[in-house]
Amino acid sequence: MDVQVSPLAVAMAELPPLAGVRLGSAAAGIRYQGRTDLVMAELAPGTTVAGVFTRSQCPGAPVDWCRAALRGGKARAVVVNAGNANVFTGRAGRETCAATAEAAAALVGCKPREVFIASTGVIGEVLPHERLAAALPGLHGRLREDGWEDAARGIMTTDTFPKTATRTARIGGEEVRISGIAKGSGMIAPDMATMLSFVFTDAKIPADLLDTMLRKGVEGSFNRTTVDSDTSTSDTVLLFATGQAKHPRIPARDGSNAAGRMLGDFRAKLDEVLLDLALQVVRDGEGAQKLVRIDVTGAVSAKSAKRVAMAVANSPLVKTAIAGEDANWGRIVMAVGKAGEPADRDRLSVGVGGTWMARDGGVVPGYDETPVVEHMKGREVDIAIDLGLGGGKATVWTCDLTHGYIDINGSYRS
Amino acid sequence: MDVQVSPLAVAMAELPPLAGVRLGSAAAGIRYQGRTDLVMAELAPGTTVAGVFTRSQCPGAPVDWCRAALRGGKARAVVVNAGNANVFTGRAGRETCAATAEAAAALVGCKPREVFIASTGVIGEVLPHERLAAALPGLHGRLREDGWEDAARGIMTTDTFPKTATRTARIGGEEVRISGIAKGSGMIAPDMATMLSFVFTDAKIPADLLDTMLRKGVEGSFNRTTVDSDTSTSDTVLLFATGQAKHPRIPARDGSNAAGRMLGDFRAKLDEVLLDLALQVVRDGEGAQKLVRIDVTGAVSAKSAKRVAMAVANSPLVKTAIAGEDANWGRIVMAVGKAGEPADRDRLSVGVGGTWMARDGGVVPGYDETPVVEHMKGREVDIAIDLGLGGGKATVWTCDLTHGYIDINGSYRS
Repeated sequence: MDVQVSPLAVAMAELPPLAGVRLGSAAAGIRYQGRTDLVMAELAPGTTVAGVFTRSQCPGAPVDWCRAALRGGKARAVVVNAGNANVFTGRAGRETCAATAEAAAALVGCKPREVFIASTGVIGEVLPHERLAAALPGLHGRLREDGWEDAARGIMTTDTFPKTATRTARIGGEEVRISGIAKGSGMIAPDMATMLSFVFTDAKIPADLLDTMLRKGVEGSFNRTTVDSDTSTSDTVLLFATGQAKHPRIPARDGSNAAGRMLGDFRAKLDEVLLDLALQVVRDGEGAQKLVRIDVTGAVSAKSAKRVAMAVANSPLVKTAIAGEDANWGRIVMAVGKAGEPADRDRLSVGVGGTWMARDGGVVPGYDETPVVEHMKGREVDIAIDLGLGGGKATVWTCDLTHGYIDINGSYRS
Repeated sequence: MDVQVSPLAVAMAELPPLAGVRLGSAAAGIRYQGRTDLVMAELAPGTTVAGVFTRSQCPGAPVDWCRAALRGGKARAVVVNAGNANVFTGRAGRETCAATAEAAAALVGCKPREVFIASTGVIGEVLPHERLAAALPGLHGRLREDGWEDAARGIMTTDTFPKTATRTARIGGEEVRISGIAKGSGMIAPDMATMLSFVFTDAKIPADLLDTMLRKGVEGSFNRTTVDSDTSTSDTVLLFATGQAKHPRIPARDGSNAAGRMLGDFRAKLDEVLLDLALQVVRDGEGAQKLVRIDVTGAVSAKSAKRVAMAVANSPLVKTAIAGEDANWGRIVMAVGKAGEPADRDRLSVGVGGTWMARDGGVVPGYDETPVVEHMKGREVDIAIDLGLGGGKATVWTCDLTHGYIDINGSYRS
């Protein structure tokens, strides 16, 4: 199978050093040959952390580990491996997490519960944690402030390009940085914290505020994307704040919302980083040839709008039509109809690339397909759906469904 | 694009004449060249009818027509066309239904509301009803008692083989016949009366009893199947009882359930016909190479079991793994986890082809993949999932996801 870089790939953003974070990668030989597959980041003392995880009823052992570790609100290290997801591995999986955290904690000089763990790859095979433990000391000795690209590459599985994003934000007049990496290409689905993403900032923000901002940001980014409707058992987004930046202290939460005002710009830039990373994951969707944006307006509520948009985004018939550059709005109507949300066929309008094709339950009189056909040939396809019922709206992103997806997933494990 | 008969096709059951039904097909030139695309059946006076339809919020005009016509409980004719679904066609769509029903009613000598209409094919294009009206008189003149195969072929779209099924049942010691035809291959999804199916019996059964039996039968057959999770706007199953058989009168409904006892065998055989037709649709799923049966046991309820089974049946990653003959039970675990139903990872068991691969949250000690690999190479793949929580169980059917699906749907309209 040829593995080619996604035609939707974006140039990798170079991430500058971020005070309080040193990171790097190593080849631990977990599954892949001739590439790195183990990533570690060491975080400055005092780093706070927030996380969101898959809502799968069958989460992986690392998700269980992180959920428990989050109760402390502090982080000193992250260890991530690719090639084996350590999911459905029973007691062996739990022991692997504990052993890995202990090995990293000994190197860093912290408690095991301050080590966060994520794994991605095959489900149901025991992760050989002795290989991780063997590779960690050498990796720890090579951690660097500029190890971002290495880290972004080391966590890839079926990804075809590394995913990074960075922004600066101001808190009380002082500049802080927000940088993140992500991996993900298949088993990407809505309504969860999807795939693996690690975001870092040098701002000093209490864990509870981090948590609030992360949840809101993920809902507007990762949770608005889907590649194949299949929610992973390992979805993890972690946000670390090293507290090394020099900005006025964020006050504790009180009725005045002083913290909220101080963090306005930070929140906006965090949301940008999260959406940037989420869209890179969609751009690297397995077999993707086109990035698809779906705007739903006129729904009875925002929640209803999102459900309709996701029904369209997950429809195999819509996605194959887009792959075939066919502006088949009948399939969009079908997907709206099956969403189970309030819709009135005779008020429904559908547009592609800024041209309304159908209005109020029928084709637009004199509809000229020419600009739509031209738009469908591009790498980015925009679909607009107006339900004509209320003020609810939502935007979600997906990719097309092509032979590439079948190629990748008909032969992934074997 | 090569169109080859599905490797899962079954030999067509030959349907003998059924008293009170004459049927046939014609080439009306709606969309296809060189094939029939219009089917008509004339039904004896006194025929009762029941129907179930798509739950789509954007149903086609023929579905609206049939729902209204069903209120009368009587049927004298059915007219079905392939190539154009008459969906999202606004007022023109309603007028087409009315004009077609009037044309057929004039030929048969009945009221337009005793004519049932179904259309299948492209969405969003106006159906040229003058072509139907032009072809109907000739077609009506050629209706025959042995026109079953012609009818089954005339309603096909992306189907690769005609779908028929027949059984005999006994009512009060007398033999009656139940025969049906169906079409469907893509846009096949659960929880609805899926695609087009027309079932006929010569029994004499009041419309309300027909309705009860049809709803129950559809829930156990069509509503347990999925090809691609995309629910059609046109799903229709109609059941006609011509009343021509000589059996004791079915008593009206009362507290004694006498009718229920008399109809026991009929119900069982009707269920068989419906499941037979439903599985033929799955066997002709677009691009299907394997028929997949999913048995879920140990769920907290039957409803929960069905949802879990459908989450597995609709997972692109499970379906591509099956296409690749990869017994990737990790993906089955993933799909169980995302279903949103009660599940406990550490009680979950997964088996394929009669071999349990994973038990109680981990791989079975000493698991030997050999018989599973052999089973995966066959045309029929059985997946068993035991949630270990309660007594709820359900069985659903799907097919694998292959390059064929992409081929068909990336170029269907254009």
